[in-house]
Amino acid sequence: MPEIDLNCDMGEGSGAGTTGSDAELLRHVTSANIACGFHAGDPMVMQHTVRLARDAGVVIGAHPGFPDLQGFGRRPMQLTPHDVHAQTLYQIGALQAIARAEGATVVHVKPHGALYNMAAQDDALADAIADAVRCADASLLLFGLSGSALIRAGMRAGLRTVSEVFADRTYQADGTLTPRSRADALHHEAARAVEQVLAFVHHGTVTATDGTVVRVQADTVCLHGDGPHAADFARALRAALADANVTVRATPR
Amino acid sequence: MPEIDLNCDMGEGSGAGTTGSDAELLRHVTSANIACGFHAGDPMVMQHTVRLARDAGVVIGAHPGFPDLQGFGRRPMQLTPHDVHAQTLYQIGALQAIARAEGATVVHVKPHGALYNMAAQDDALADAIADAVRCADASLLLFGLSGSALIRAGMRAGLRTVSEVFADRTYQADGTLTPRSRADALHHEAARAVEQVLAFVHHGTVTATDGTVVRVQADTVCLHGDGPHAADFARALRAALADANVTVRATPR
Amino acid sequence: MPEIDLNCDMGEGSGAGTTGSDAELLRHVTSANIACGFHAGDPMVMQHTVRLARDAGVVIGAHPGFPDLQGFGRRPMQLTPHDVHAQTLYQIGALQAIARAEGATVVHVKPHGALYNMAAQDDALADAIADAVRCADASLLLFGLSGSALIRAGMRAGLRTVSEVFADRTYQADGTLTPRSRADALHHEAARAVEQVLAFVHHGTVTATDGTVVRVQADTVCLHGDGPHAADFARALRAALADANVTVRATPR
Amino acid sequence: MPEIDLNCDMGEGSGAGTTGSDAELLRHVTSANIACGFHAGDPMVMQHTVRLARDAGVVIGAHPGFPDLQGFGRRPMQLTPHDVHAQTLYQIGALQAIARAEGATVVHVKPHGALYNMAAQDDALADAIADAVRCADASLLLFGLSGSALIRAGMRAGLRTVSEVFADRTYQADGTLTPRSRADALHHEAARAVEQVLAFVHHGTVTATDGTVVRVQADTVCLHGDGPHAADFARALRAALADANVTVRATPR
Repeated sequence: MPEIDLNCDMGEGSGAGTTGSDAELLRHVTSANIACGFHAGDPMVMQHTVRLARDAGVVIGAHPGFPDLQGFGRRPMQLTPHDVHAQTLYQIGALQAIARAEGATVVHVKPHGALYNMAAQDDALADAIADAVRCADASLLLFGLSGSALIRAGMRAGLRTVSEVFADRTYQADGTLTPRSRADALHHEAARAVEQVLAFVHHGTVTATDGTVVRVQADTVCLHGDGPHAADFARALRAALADANVTVRATPR
Repeated sequence: MPEIDLNCDMGEGSGAGTTGSDAELLRHVTSANIACGFHAGDPMVMQHTVRLARDAGVVIGAHPGFPDLQGFGRRPMQLTPHDVHAQTLYQIGALQAIARAEGATVVHVKPHGALYNMAAQDDALADAIADAVRCADASLLLFGLSGSALIRAGMRAGLRTVSEVFADRTYQADGTLTPRSRADALHHEAARAVEQVLAFVHHGTVTATDGTVVRVQADTVCLHGDGPHAADFARALRAALADANVTVRATPR
Repeated sequence: MPEIDLNCDMGEGSGAGTTGSDAELLRHVTSANIACGFHAGDPMVMQHTVRLARDAGVVIGAHPGFPDLQGFGRRPMQLTPHDVHAQTLYQIGALQAIARAEGATVVHVKPHGALYNMAAQDDALADAIADAVRCADASLLLFGLSGSALIRAGMRAGLRTVSEVFADRTYQADGTLTPRSRADALHHEAARAVEQVLAFVHHGTVTATDGTVVRVQADTVCLHGDGPHAADFARALRAALADANVTVRATPR
Repeated sequence: MPEIDLNCDMGEGSGAGTTGSDAELLRHVTSANIACGFHAGDPMVMQHTVRLARDAGVVIGAHPGFPDLQGFGRRPMQLTPHDVHAQTLYQIGALQAIARAEGATVVHVKPHGALYNMAAQDDALADAIADAVRCADASLLLFGLSGSALIRAGMRAGLRTVSEVFADRTYQADGTLTPRSRADALHHEAARAVEQVLAFVHHGTVTATDGTVVRVQADTVCLHGDGPHAADFARALRAALADANVTVRATPR
C-alpha cells in the first residue's frame, strides 16, 4: 500500500502577526516544520506550536531560515557556508531545547525559503546545512527538494534524507519547478493539485506543463500553510488520499 | 454640531505576519496610527500603509513603540528618558521620510502599547516623548490618554494635544480605565461601546462600572484594529455616529 | 587547600562590535559565560568563542539575557515567567548545539544583566529560569548571586547551584551589593578587589563599606570582561591567588 | 589651490559593541557617514555621534545599509528595488529627525558595505537609492564610487553627486578596485596611501597595480574608521595634505 508524508510550515507568527490556521492544519498533516525565530517565529510561538503539534501527534521538525524577519526569509542572502553552518545549528538547537521541555523531539530539519532554494543548487551551502544537521543530531532526517543538491549533501553527510515534492507547483520537462515568475507556476484548482499528488504516489511521475511525463522521487508532499484556503486544501487532499487507499504518515525515523 | 475623530492602529504586519483588515478599516476611521518598525511594521509595510491611508483620505500619524517585536511592544521596558527620546525621534523621522516620498504628511504621534501606558503615568517619560515630538516637528499633534501625564507633558512642550478615550474599555469612578486583569475591563457588545462613545460626544461623560458618571475629555476615540471583528465594529460605530448627527473628522492641524 | 572558580562574560561582540580581549582573558579564568544572541553575540561569534574556550580548557556556560541588543540586556523588561522560560530555553539550546558541533559541552548557565538582577529578587522569574535550565539539561549548574532568589529557585528545581560574588563591587552590612548609583559601589584599585577575593576564599567573609564583617558564600568570582583593563586585572588576581596557594578551578560538574 | 573632502564611517557601535575612536577621527575628517541602525548603530549611538560630529564641525551624512546586524551589512542581499527604496528612506529619515533635534543637518548620503558595492554595478538598485535620497531631501548630496552606476543614477535623479576614491585600496588598469580577494588589494603602508591620495588630488590619476596610469575623478577620499590604526592614519594623511597645500573641506552643499 502506497505511503506519503504531508508536511506544512508552522509557527510563522510573532508579536502582532499570527498565521492563524496552525491548529486546524495539524489535523491534516503528518509533519510540521516549525520556524525558529530567524525568518519568523519566536521562543513563545515555538513553544506554543510544539505543544500543538505534540498534542496532535504530528512529527516536529526545525525550519531554519535566513536572519530576515522583514523579508520572511524569502530574500536571497550571500552568506558564507561557515555563517550558514553556525546559524543552522543555532536554530536547530533552540528548537531542540524547547521541544525537550515539552516532552517532544525534533525529528527532521527543512530549510526555509531562499535558504531552501539556494541549497537546492549550491553544493557548498548544502554541505554546510547537512553538516550542521549532522552535528546537531546525526539521527535527524533532512528534508530537501527532490533531486536537489541538498539531498545529495545529506547523503554525503550520512543523513537519512526525505525528498520533497509540491502539491500546488507545476513542473518542467527537466523535472524542475516552473519558476514563480511564470503564469503557469501554480495549480490554482485543488483538483489539479490532488491529481498531481496521486500521480506522485502511485506512479512516481509528474506531468510537466508541456505534457512530458517525468519521473520524480517523492517521500513527502509540501502543503503551503499561509494562504487563506490552506486548511481547506489540506482537508481535501487528505480525504482524496484516504479514498485512494494511500497511507498518510511521517517518514519513520 | 458635535465632532469626534476615530483613530486606529495600522500597519502592524511584517514579513509573514499581516493583520489584514487595514484597507477595510480605513473606510471608517479618520486617523491612522502607523507602526514604525520597533514593535511591528517595517519600511515596506509602512510605505504600503501610508499609500492606503493617503488614498483613503485618512490622516497619518506615527505610532512609535518599544523595540520589542517579540512582545509587540506590550511588555514594559525600563528605559531612560534619554533612550526613549532618541528612539521616538528615530521612529517619527523614519515615517516622515516615507510619507514625504508618497506626497503625504505625518500629522500626529501616538505612542504604542506599554510605552503609551507608562507615559500616561510617568512624567519624565512623558516629557521625553513630548520633547522628541516637538523636535521632530513642533506642529505635530500629540495623542495621549485623556487626563494623562502625556497630555500634560505635551502642553508643557507647547504641543497641541489630542485626548483619547476608548470605545470598548470600561472606566472606574476616578476616570481611569478598568485594568485589563479584571473581568469587566471590556465592553463585549458593540451596542454598549457605541453607547459609551455617544455619551462622550454628547455629554463629555462616561458611566463607570459602579454607575458613577464621570466627566471625560474626548477629542478622539481609539478603535482596536486587531480583533477579528474590528472592521465590523468600526462600520457600526461610524453608522451610529452618522445617525446621531455627529461629524466624524480628524482634529484639524 | 581553598578553591575558587573565576568566571567572565565572553562573546559579546556582533557584526561591527567586538570586545576584543576574550582570547587574553581565557588565559586567566576558569569559566566562560557566552552570550547567546539576545543581548549580544550571534551564531558566528558564539561558535568562535566556544572554540577559544575549548582550546583554552575553560569551562563553557550559557549567558542568556533579555532580547535587547540596543540596551545590551541591561534595561529591565517586564516579561511573564512564561516568556522568560521560553526565551531561556531557546538561548541555552542554541549554544548547546553550537558547542556540540565543536566537541564541547555547555556546563553552566548564568543569566545576564537585568535578567540576572531581577531573578535575584523575583521568585517567579527565578523559578522560570531554573525550570528552563532543568528542562534543557538537569545536570547543568546554575550560577546566581550569592544568597539570591535565583540560588533558592535552583535548589527547589533540584539543580546544583554555584553562588557568585564580585571582585570589584562593594558590599553593604546586610550582605547586598552597594547599588551602582552610589559613589562607593566599586573598588577602583585592583589591590582592594584582590583583598576582597582573598577574604572570601579564606574566611567566607566580606567587609562592608561601613566596616561590618559579613558572611558570604562564594563558589565563583565574577570578573568583568568589558573594561579596558579587564585582562590586566584578571592576570593580577590570578597571580595573587597563586601566591596565596588558592586553587583556581571550575566547579566540578 | 586643490581641495579634497575626507570622509569616514562612524557610529558603528550598538549595545556592547563600540568602535571607540570616533571622537579622535572627527579631528581629522570633514564628512562623517553615520550608521542608521540597520547594519550597525542604534538611536542612542546615532544621537551621540551626531553631537560629536556637530561639535567637531564635521559634516553629517546618513550611511544606510542592509538590515543585517550579524553581518555588519557586508553580506549581499537580493532585495527588490522597491524594498531598497523603502529601507533607504526609513534610515535617512530616522537620522534626519535625530539630527534636527540636535540643531544639525544631514547633508549627504552614502550607502554602506554590500549595498554600496551592489549599487555601484546595478542600475535598478542605484536608481532606487537615488530616488529615495531625492524624496527624502532633493538637496542631499549622494556619495558613490567614482565612475559607478550609483553616481550615474544620482545624476539621472537630478542630485548633486560626490565621487569617492579610496586611500588604501589599489586599482586596476580599467579603473576598478582590485578585488579584496587578491593579495595586492590594499596598501598596507600609510606612505603609499598618502602618495595615492596626493596623485588623485594633484593629477586626477591613480597608478594601477600593473603600472598603468588611470584617470580617476575624486571629490572625496574614504578613510576606514574601524582598524586599530585608523586615527593614526587619518592624522598622517591630514598632515601630508597640509604639507602639500591641499585644502581639506567638505563638498559645499
